[in-house]
Amino acid sequence: MSTEDAAKAAGPAQAAGPGRPGAEVFDWVDAARRERERAGLVRELRPRRPDAETLDLAGNDYLGLCRHPEVKAAAADAALRWGAGSTGSRLVTGTTALHARLEAELAAFCGFEAGLVFASGYAANLAAVAALGGPGGLIVSDAANHASLIDGCRLARSEVVVAPHADPAAFAKALDGHRGRALVVTDGVFSVAGARAPLPELAAVCRAAGAGLLVDDAHGLGVLGEGGRGSLAAARLAGAPDVVATVTLSKALGSQGGAVLGPARVIRHLVSAARTFMFDTGLAPASAGGALAALRLLRREPARPARVLAVARELYRRLADRGLPAIAPETAVVAVAAPSAEAAVTWAAGCRAAGVEVGCFRPPSVPRGVFRLRLTARADLTEDQLARAVEAVAETAPAGARRGG
Amino acid sequence: MSTEDAAKAAGPAQAAGPGRPGAEVFDWVDAARRERERAGLVRELRPRRPDAETLDLAGNDYLGLCRHPEVKAAAADAALRWGAGSTGSRLVTGTTALHARLEAELAAFCGFEAGLVFASGYAANLAAVAALGGPGGLIVSDAANHASLIDGCRLARSEVVVAPHADPAAFAKALDGHRGRALVVTDGVFSVAGARAPLPELAAVCRAAGAGLLVDDAHGLGVLGEGGRGSLAAARLAGAPDVVATVTLSKALGSQGGAVLGPARVIRHLVSAARTFMFDTGLAPASAGGALAALRLLRREPARPARVLAVARELYRRLADRGLPAIAPETAVVAVAAPSAEAAVTWAAGCRAAGVEVGCFRPPSVPRGVFRLRLTARADLTEDQLARAVEAVAETAPAGARRGG
Ligand SMILES: Cc1ncc(COP(=O)(O)O)c(C=O)c1O
Ligand SMILES: Cc1ncc(COP(=O)(O)O)c(C=O)c1O
Repeated sequence: MSTEDAAKAAGPAQAAGPGRPGAEVFDWVDAARRERERAGLVRELRPRRPDAETLDLAGNDYLGLCRHPEVKAAAADAALRWGAGSTGSRLVTGTTALHARLEAELAAFCGFEAGLVFASGYAANLAAVAALGGPGGLIVSDAANHASLIDGCRLARSEVVVAPHADPAAFAKALDGHRGRALVVTDGVFSVAGARAPLPELAAVCRAAGAGLLVDDAHGLGVLGEGGRGSLAAARLAGAPDVVATVTLSKALGSQGGAVLGPARVIRHLVSAARTFMFDTGLAPASAGGALAALRLLRREPARPARVLAVARELYRRLADRGLPAIAPETAVVAVAAPSAEAAVTWAAGCRAAGVEVGCFRPPSVPRGVFRLRLTARADLTEDQLARAVEAVAETAPAGARRGG
Repeated sequence: MSTEDAAKAAGPAQAAGPGRPGAEVFDWVDAARRERERAGLVRELRPRRPDAETLDLAGNDYLGLCRHPEVKAAAADAALRWGAGSTGSRLVTGTTALHARLEAELAAFCGFEAGLVFASGYAANLAAVAALGGPGGLIVSDAANHASLIDGCRLARSEVVVAPHADPAAFAKALDGHRGRALVVTDGVFSVAGARAPLPELAAVCRAAGAGLLVDDAHGLGVLGEGGRGSLAAARLAGAPDVVATVTLSKALGSQGGAVLGPARVIRHLVSAARTFMFDTGLAPASAGGALAALRLLRREPARPARVLAVARELYRRLADRGLPAIAPETAVVAVAAPSAEAAVTWAAGCRAAGVEVGCFRPPSVPRGVFRLRLTARADLTEDQLARAVEAVAETAPAGARRGG
């Protein structure tokens, strides 16, 4: 919550203040905040209004399905039919027929034998990495992997080797000579810049070493592969016996939740072994219903993914034409380099003032010294909106942002 | 998913089978499964149907709010108004005015200065433990804590001492002589048996040692304290400057999601430091809307929590009268000891066949050698349903289950 909200929310409790017993225990968070302030790395929350007129180029609703009438109606129907929550762990009362349908259709669509739905993509990643790693195993993890994969590595209690970003030879070297269980873990699409992992090369490295390949396709599903079947379908790796994918229901599918897709025996293993499956409440019916409707829409309208890629390329071309250091997109994401943390924050604020919301990435979301605007293309952006977005980004560019400037 | 579903879901991919390249990589999960089968610890999913007539004594919908018309309608309305998902991280586009309202009202209700909503209670616990621990800190964690707190300890990279269950003197000893940041972490209500933590004693230990106290009140909110304000309100610790609570929106509030409640500066710290906040998509609007409606209902109908406790005591009395080894409830949970893993599974299956769903707990959900049926009271159980539940549990009790038998 924002500082002002925090003040407003102050309830019956007395405000924490000096002099009260225990008042000094969390003094260290103020020191941490001052340090963050000096580095320009403080985050504030800005609640959206339902009637906001801002043009959203910051969210991950790549296909524009989050607010699609069919998707919203399916989410609402599921809440009315099943209740607001799933009432328990998936192992107890938290599995509805809706969860089972979503698992079956998602796995079939992406080309995998079986699937398992989690409360979030984050939880799906923790589950897959931790349950397929484990004590005695080796995990080789890409240096640019998403936080949830990194946390999965920390929870797995395996030996973990962090390999240089997108470098198959380095992965091969890390696996070399290892005996016993091994797992290569990578994002399929790296989220900040939208870069694609070298999946065919990584799969060959895994095959040669007898290692499993786990790919987080959070930003590939609905965007890449035939009809949006994802990075693994694009690389003809979907359904292979040594490949496991994780996906999220919260980006192209416009809802909330995540899933692990893979061989049936691996999925069965997760049911009895994955802590974030066994000890977490099942996904809310509304979220499962919304994601299922989005998946069906995607199946029915297979041109949406090509459209989002075309919009991203056009966005890039126009930004580059204005002299901005945009990075040529491989997916739905167009990243633009900013000269500093402060410049990135000011630039994003300028865009917002001009009515265009863009993402602003600073450490620890990106490596130290990297500052980025992140623009996401959407399949439903109009020519007008595209022009408005480019205008806002170009007009508010800070001194030093332009190439050679 | 169940084995049959997995077979049915087999999509365009070829089934994994011997002879295909890479087919042996996940052979080890079959060995793990055989071991689990021998120990009676395999889990299978049983999808519910919306029209199921089963009496649910297994879920955590303590107040019967998950399917309350107002709560369902609020969830549905939020999906229609905001979309099926929140579209991004809470730091980017994933904070709506609805999230901000929920945070303010939840914190005020429970008596804390500020609150922060997460995609799940699991994520809230990972965030709170990891962000308030950290390298150089000491965490003292109750041996019976929930999996999400344990995973939080593993992610915190602090020194972690596991203290014997509910033993304040042992916590004091673990803190003794430590200099620098320290945090005591405990469930407020331990979920399997519904036992309450000795919060006043633990708070005194923390005060004396200058440690923070973090309490997971997943099963206390809506059940304990005046009007359901939770374990910390009951212990007059809510709002103290050295106390942080986590709650879930998925149990008494009948929805999905979690929250951290505490001093405003601690909440602000989490916004910029908690990985499961920064790098996870915001809670779906339907779940936030459902939880907010449930919270308002609870405020308006403050007798519901007392009712669930009365139902639990009555359930216990009747089971004990039938000679069953039920444990006297301190909260909404009535646990019944089973003689073995197989007996617990057979017993729960018998109850299910008799139309009553009960929880069945085996390791690793409980310590090695512990086997339990877990019955949850609900505020809306009728006399008829109560009688039916007791009848089912008593009639299907395995040989050796009864006291002295
Ligand atoms: C690459 C990647 N993996 C996993 C996740 C987590 O998924 P979710 O937000 O649905 O929990 C995200 C985004 O939040 C992501 O960008
Ligand atoms: C004690 C306890 N803490 C945390 C959680 C996690 O909360 P959630 O299921 O809402 O993610 C649970 C239940 O799942 C729990 O029982």
